[in-house]
Amino acid sequence: MINFQTSPDQYRHWKLSFEGPVARLSMDVQEDETLNDGYKLKLNSYDLGVDIELADAIQRIRFEHPEVRAVVVTSLKPRIFCAGANIYMLGTSSHAFKVNFCKFTNETRCAMEDDSRHSGRRYLAALNGTASGGGYELAIACDEIYLVDDGNSAVSLPEVPLLGVLPGTGGLTRLVDTRKVRRDRADVFSTLAEGLKGKRAKEWRLIDDTFATSKFPEAIDNRVAQIVNLRSNEDAQISGIKLHPLTVETGAGPTDKSDSRDYKYVSLQFHHESRYVDLTVRGPEPNLPTTTDEIQQLGDSYWPLRAYRELDDALLYLRVNEPEIGLVCLRTEGKIDDVLAVDRALAANRDHWLVREIIMMMARTLRRLDLTAKSFFSIVEPGSCFAGNLLELALSSDRVYMLNNPDERVELATSELNRGALPMSNGLSRLQSRFLSEPERADQVMAHGATFDTEAAEEAGLVTFAPDDLDWDDEIRLAIEERTSLSPDALTGMEASLRFAGPETMDTKIYGRLTAWQNWIFQRPNAVGPNGALTNYGKPTQAQFDYKRT
Amino acid sequence: MINFQTSPDQYRHWKLSFEGPVARLSMDVQEDETLNDGYKLKLNSYDLGVDIELADAIQRIRFEHPEVRAVVVTSLKPRIFCAGANIYMLGTSSHAFKVNFCKFTNETRCAMEDDSRHSGRRYLAALNGTASGGGYELAIACDEIYLVDDGNSAVSLPEVPLLGVLPGTGGLTRLVDTRKVRRDRADVFSTLAEGLKGKRAKEWRLIDDTFATSKFPEAIDNRVAQIVNLRSNEDAQISGIKLHPLTVETGAGPTDKSDSRDYKYVSLQFHHESRYVDLTVRGPEPNLPTTTDEIQQLGDSYWPLRAYRELDDALLYLRVNEPEIGLVCLRTEGKIDDVLAVDRALAANRDHWLVREIIMMMARTLRRLDLTAKSFFSIVEPGSCFAGNLLELALSSDRVYMLNNPDERVELATSELNRGALPMSNGLSRLQSRFLSEPERADQVMAHGATFDTEAAEEAGLVTFAPDDLDWDDEIRLAIEERTSLSPDALTGMEASLRFAGPETMDTKIYGRLTAWQNWIFQRPNAVGPNGALTNYGKPTQAQFDYKRT
Repeated sequence: MINFQTSPDQYRHWKLSFEGPVARLSMDVQEDETLNDGYKLKLNSYDLGVDIELADAIQRIRFEHPEVRAVVVTSLKPRIFCAGANIYMLGTSSHAFKVNFCKFTNETRCAMEDDSRHSGRRYLAALNGTASGGGYELAIACDEIYLVDDGNSAVSLPEVPLLGVLPGTGGLTRLVDTRKVRRDRADVFSTLAEGLKGKRAKEWRLIDDTFATSKFPEAIDNRVAQIVNLRSNEDAQISGIKLHPLTVETGAGPTDKSDSRDYKYVSLQFHHESRYVDLTVRGPEPNLPTTTDEIQQLGDSYWPLRAYRELDDALLYLRVNEPEIGLVCLRTEGKIDDVLAVDRALAANRDHWLVREIIMMMARTLRRLDLTAKSFFSIVEPGSCFAGNLLELALSSDRVYMLNNPDERVELATSELNRGALPMSNGLSRLQSRFLSEPERADQVMAHGATFDTEAAEEAGLVTFAPDDLDWDDEIRLAIEERTSLSPDALTGMEASLRFAGPETMDTKIYGRLTAWQNWIFQRPNAVGPNGALTNYGKPTQAQFDYKRT
Repeated sequence: MINFQTSPDQYRHWKLSFEGPVARLSMDVQEDETLNDGYKLKLNSYDLGVDIELADAIQRIRFEHPEVRAVVVTSLKPRIFCAGANIYMLGTSSHAFKVNFCKFTNETRCAMEDDSRHSGRRYLAALNGTASGGGYELAIACDEIYLVDDGNSAVSLPEVPLLGVLPGTGGLTRLVDTRKVRRDRADVFSTLAEGLKGKRAKEWRLIDDTFATSKFPEAIDNRVAQIVNLRSNEDAQISGIKLHPLTVETGAGPTDKSDSRDYKYVSLQFHHESRYVDLTVRGPEPNLPTTTDEIQQLGDSYWPLRAYRELDDALLYLRVNEPEIGLVCLRTEGKIDDVLAVDRALAANRDHWLVREIIMMMARTLRRLDLTAKSFFSIVEPGSCFAGNLLELALSSDRVYMLNNPDERVELATSELNRGALPMSNGLSRLQSRFLSEPERADQVMAHGATFDTEAAEEAGLVTFAPDDLDWDDEIRLAIEERTSLSPDALTGMEASLRFAGPETMDTKIYGRLTAWQNWIFQRPNAVGPNGALTNYGKPTQAQFDYKRT
């Protein structure tokens, strides 16, 4: 079982240090501390374990150190920044693991970009040595890239020439869309195993600047000082909150798998034989505080932060540890009024740093859900609280089933947060995405004000099916049976296509276009067959290609 | 060898008829007239041969019948419109063939949409019976869809539930992006093998209207009459030109393949052992006519039309008949002034129907090149004429090599047509796409006016490398050798990612996102393995899935 929770005192591969408004995130991968057997993490290469620490560090900077204005990403190894994803790890991993690994790594990079865009922190990649493959991809997720000019250090994307696969953690898309490298230069660079050094790399926009070894630390310090001096005095005085470990209780299952997983506000109840899971989110307690002082006091026990951290962990657990679970039935329990009260407090205080961070964390978690390769059905029954932020769960779902029973009150409700505070990867709100054909419907839903009973919800276009109580159990059972009987691959491709109508962004291009191509290549014999390039990397044998173009 | 040339008198599967401003395109597939052995084209199902006729028909309507304002796409079979791509054909085809087949089919549908958008013709799908799979995908490429209400006929996308693959010719993207069907309804529809009929189909935006069997022909006629009555009288009077067959001479090669293929203005010279081909486009003769009357007189022998029809045919030939050719070296021969003179005539007369159609055909051909899964290098040498519309060949290339020799004149040049008349699938001009980082550079290139010698071209960012005459031969040879040694799969994914920076459109979503997912699924054991759904379709055996989600 892969555990996505960690904390700085447990890090094995990163050092995270703070000096006033500057955080320093230094990679120092311990080659024997791997997540699986069969490979060594040489030259600051990484596996999922290294990346879980990075994701945790980015999250902690945001919540625990809001005073930070500049994050320097660098390495403690001499002459090497990072060699990217470990190739032997990739070579020995299953197809599904490789795909999930690349997705998680990309999400962490998007989280850095999200932080830079919305929280105003600036990320500097201080490449004190060569950055190749995923190492350079990490750098291009930073705002600025500086490379030491030591006559040797280079940036490179050697995946195509050396491994017969793509730079799989967003590299190609970020190259032409973020760095806006000219396409023909991007082509040359992406086929050049040794990469490019200082002056040429700068000329081609691959890095922002290059400095001689002796001047490198000072140049970085100067740039950091420039950034930091722009900050307001207010920033220096805010202090963070502590993110404590999540507690989870697992129930023993009939096989080696747990049949349940209970956090404080989130529960997973597995139906392994039927290949689906019930994921229940419990709403907040009544009368939660509404002022920022009180919210900061509550810290990570404040419902939205705690519940969404748990939801995030549950989604990652499902992706990596439960590959055969194809369908997630999303359920909620609680009082709609209590959820709406929390949303009012969040919306009223969204200019406060902590509330802003909480809302953005909720948004990232919901995007993680959108990008999870499992089907999601929302099941709306009496006692549920799909309101405001939790209504986004329904709007994220492939389908929404809502009970239509005149004798029992079942409702949905909107809050201010549905208006765009929790955007999808395509930049739209989920209501906007849902009503692309009739944009005015999204406005009508928001203007509706009160809660929606089943008929109103159906009329408004918020639910897919609204069976009555006589049919309810059968309909839900049949829908689950039918969904879990379909080809899991076809569903993954179908959901990835249907979930993201409307505009595309760099994020959707990474997850849609690039990921899909990489998935294709990751199972081609030219990469992973006995004669494939990935299989034969580092061996005395040479790759043999079937040169037919597809 | 698959031949992409045909004409209405040779059609076996379509009837194309004209009545004033109305064209009627009726599908009547002959089940034994297949492109390959091993399957029968029952129920108006199609293979590439059927689609080649459709592509030809759309092209001919545009050039030969400009008076047409409405195109009715229907079927001559009772109770069936079209059952989509033939499943046994798919089941027995190679991966590469399936991918190329889907791509070509999509390009034809995009050509219909392009015609509707830019030439003002309106396409009506008159579904006189069930439209399933690719049959419905053909319908949603039309502007309007009408379905007979006979209690039986439905529209459906049964690929996911029946075959474990995606609706692969743009269906999912067009469903949510063109028809803007709500995502949860799109999800239900795409998993429902039997599809949806009349009223529900209309309510879900899958069709525009439905009429009882007895009223169906009249309802279609009425709608056609409405469209046609909106046309101007001018339209009725224009008369088209004839598209004659292209002539091509092939040179016998050492194996079963030709080692050359010569059209009038386009030549292919194969280097099969080295897996590359030289594709040369010869520029126009001097002093071509400049008035629309003279151009119409010339008809399909007018250089831009003839040369680009030949280029289009050559690209299709390379895709399907030469899978092992991984690299196309693009060369041009002729006088820059002659190309620029043609471009001036085209730009000056772009409001004339024929000139407009010619420019749009050139644009489609260049997009076909952008979407071809082979590497393209442009080789700019003395005697070449990469100017105006032919400069787009260079701008379409993954790399441009331009000789730098002070003793020999080598030049590039722009024309008005580089300003956006020949857009890429992403909606941008190739200059805009090239200079995403510095949009002013595209303007500077256009303002530069005169031709660019090698140094000016390099300075302007138009070429990748400009070796001098001492290094030229070695550099080109090495570049070719290196390119053709790389993994063909990694190159396909890399090129598809790097060629389309900037905005995404429905077209790029189809070719990037959807195609990549389909490619992935098309080689998954759950589809094509011994227990896969595609393999077992129509057999007494059942598909057995590995349910792990990826």
